[in-house]
Amino acid sequence: MDLETVRSNLERIAAIGADPEGGISRMFGTSFIQEAQPVLQEYFESCGMETWVDSVGNVHGLLRSGKKDAQEILIGSHYDTVKQGGMFDGLMGVIAGAEAAREFHKENGSLTKDLHVIATNGEEGNDLGGTFGSRAMAGLLDVKSEAYLEKAKAFGYSKEDLCSAVLDTSRAQCYLELHIEQGPTLDKYKEQIGIVTGIVGLRRFKVTVHGISNHAGTTMMEDRDDALTSAAQIILMADELARETGHHFVKTFGIMHIFPCTVATIPNRVEMVLEIRNEDEKLMDRFMDIFTQKALQLAKVEIEPIVAKAPVKCSAEIAEITEEICKEEGIRYRIMPSGATHDGNAMALKVPIGMIFVPSRAGISHSKEEWTDWKDVYTGISVLYKVIKKLESEETLC
Amino acid sequence: MDLETVRSNLERIAAIGADPEGGISRMFGTSFIQEAQPVLQEYFESCGMETWVDSVGNVHGLLRSGKKDAQEILIGSHYDTVKQGGMFDGLMGVIAGAEAAREFHKENGSLTKDLHVIATNGEEGNDLGGTFGSRAMAGLLDVKSEAYLEKAKAFGYSKEDLCSAVLDTSRAQCYLELHIEQGPTLDKYKEQIGIVTGIVGLRRFKVTVHGISNHAGTTMMEDRDDALTSAAQIILMADELARETGHHFVKTFGIMHIFPCTVATIPNRVEMVLEIRNEDEKLMDRFMDIFTQKALQLAKVEIEPIVAKAPVKCSAEIAEITEEICKEEGIRYRIMPSGATHDGNAMALKVPIGMIFVPSRAGISHSKEEWTDWKDVYTGISVLYKVIKKLESEETLC
Repeated sequence: MDLETVRSNLERIAAIGADPEGGISRMFGTSFIQEAQPVLQEYFESCGMETWVDSVGNVHGLLRSGKKDAQEILIGSHYDTVKQGGMFDGLMGVIAGAEAAREFHKENGSLTKDLHVIATNGEEGNDLGGTFGSRAMAGLLDVKSEAYLEKAKAFGYSKEDLCSAVLDTSRAQCYLELHIEQGPTLDKYKEQIGIVTGIVGLRRFKVTVHGISNHAGTTMMEDRDDALTSAAQIILMADELARETGHHFVKTFGIMHIFPCTVATIPNRVEMVLEIRNEDEKLMDRFMDIFTQKALQLAKVEIEPIVAKAPVKCSAEIAEITEEICKEEGIRYRIMPSGATHDGNAMALKVPIGMIFVPSRAGISHSKEEWTDWKDVYTGISVLYKVIKKLESEETLC
Repeated sequence: MDLETVRSNLERIAAIGADPEGGISRMFGTSFIQEAQPVLQEYFESCGMETWVDSVGNVHGLLRSGKKDAQEILIGSHYDTVKQGGMFDGLMGVIAGAEAAREFHKENGSLTKDLHVIATNGEEGNDLGGTFGSRAMAGLLDVKSEAYLEKAKAFGYSKEDLCSAVLDTSRAQCYLELHIEQGPTLDKYKEQIGIVTGIVGLRRFKVTVHGISNHAGTTMMEDRDDALTSAAQIILMADELARETGHHFVKTFGIMHIFPCTVATIPNRVEMVLEIRNEDEKLMDRFMDIFTQKALQLAKVEIEPIVAKAPVKCSAEIAEITEEICKEEGIRYRIMPSGATHDGNAMALKVPIGMIFVPSRAGISHSKEEWTDWKDVYTGISVLYKVIKKLESEETLC
């Protein structure tokens, strides 16, 4: 596999939607998505694949083995970006799949299974929900909701479009994805590859802290019930509890609004969104039990669940194969969960999945500052290729 | 003095600007201010005073003693309200002055000094700054600023209007004001009268706390620099420091915004407004020294002063006279600072001031829930009347 080919194709396709203010803004629903589709198709064809775009904008490439009733290895990632995102997030995994196909195509005739590369649409958060393209393939879109269909219509998708994107996975052996870590761990520990054990589950809660508003000049400290002071205690309590929990447990208050938010009035209400993520549902249950109990001791608080996504397990067999390859090649690797959601969340409901991470410099992503060293990109793509080669040569898996 | 007359006049005038959604919305710059002026003038006339409205909308009433070169006792409070405010805030002090004048008018001929009752305009926070009317009388408006003059024009005031409102205080002996406490202290301790020693000084600071944004799923707790967690530590540190300081020291974070304020991103910036109030400038200096030092130990913080108002001292002589009256009458009183700004802040730059508080139920003000028991209103008005009587009979003061 040639690093220069990887780099030139990645840079060329990443330039679609380049933002004048920096980064890449190839967001779901923009004209850059339409612009990227024929470019990706032409690229897939240059790698020896048949190509098509499905009814929700996922771009497919198929390298046929020519064997009757052959199994299929799905390899994918997304080609949309966040606003002013980086060039590697998503697209690198698409390139990795296509370049692997190019290699197998060169090795003409040796393939025993079909390789199916998918560049998914709308993986990043959007009005139809993140991982839109993969959820469409997995048949997970809410096509029974009139409100959802109305929203989809605004993006040019009919109910028929949403339904006909469902992918036949009866011959699929697995779904593989190479992605940037989007966290600082690999970079911090100078590791080249992350072998993903699973994608963490996620729960979000609206936390409303109540106090009593009053004049900020006339109400003595001892007579106050300041909702912001209570909220500060709750934030620090949650922080400590998450650290105590360990096992990669994370908590974030990413949204916070205080009311009435005027200069000389003691706040009477703070509304926050608490997010927790972990691979272990039991740890999340335990955290919320203790958090709720302690928060209620600190203030008048309402805690209302708003989102819950279950953790997803990656295939242990694929992880083992990946680990063997790293050991053979002398690659420094780490076995780790994915803290972020990926297309694998949806695909895992249909087929076993395998995920490989490469380092994100300083852990930064969703930013024009996102960066991955080319040598790490190349290591990732090579490892993915070797995993495919191993899986492709095995009779069955999972 | 007749409580029924007090109550009927207060209720009648308070009804101007009654909000269909509750409370009184007789805000500065609204048509209700214009509507109130002739009603106040007619009321002042019924109390035996000459009346006029000055060039910034302050309504004046003058009860002449008929003595040559007589001293003048100024008595005032404001007739504007906040949005959906209460009926007593401001207007009660106007009624108190007018009803005192009515009594002296009845006692025909006994008066040795002129009584000058002023219902001020725009005391509550507004686009031309709070205590607008009294600052105009004290010559404190920023008439040299083109931007200020432009804003004033939007309210129909020319530069000439702002300048010609300056009050000749050469004959003024003092300024007296009866007001609701707007805090919980008198109500809490079941006291009837607050004798105000001074109006606290106030300082506001923009406090910006910096952290590093990153993905809320992939960044482990130990790798985070969460600006909101740091802000929570700073809020609790300030809270503890204010309580330790004592001497009626108060601190409030009334405004807070977090950035980027999205659900799955660790906040990288928190902007807050810290307000501190105290009668003693040295305590405020000390608080800010310690606060700044501790905040810088906790996080990367910028602290920028945005407002500073010096404390104002009330006349000790007037306070003593008020205390004597309370003792004679068996009234439960408290000697206390005012935590809120009043027209007295501006008037104190021209003449000695005396302020009397009556209890606010549960300390609530600037709310449709504001309430003061009629018996407390009556006690306040009676004490004010007796203070005027005492001052009026003395040859000189201050």
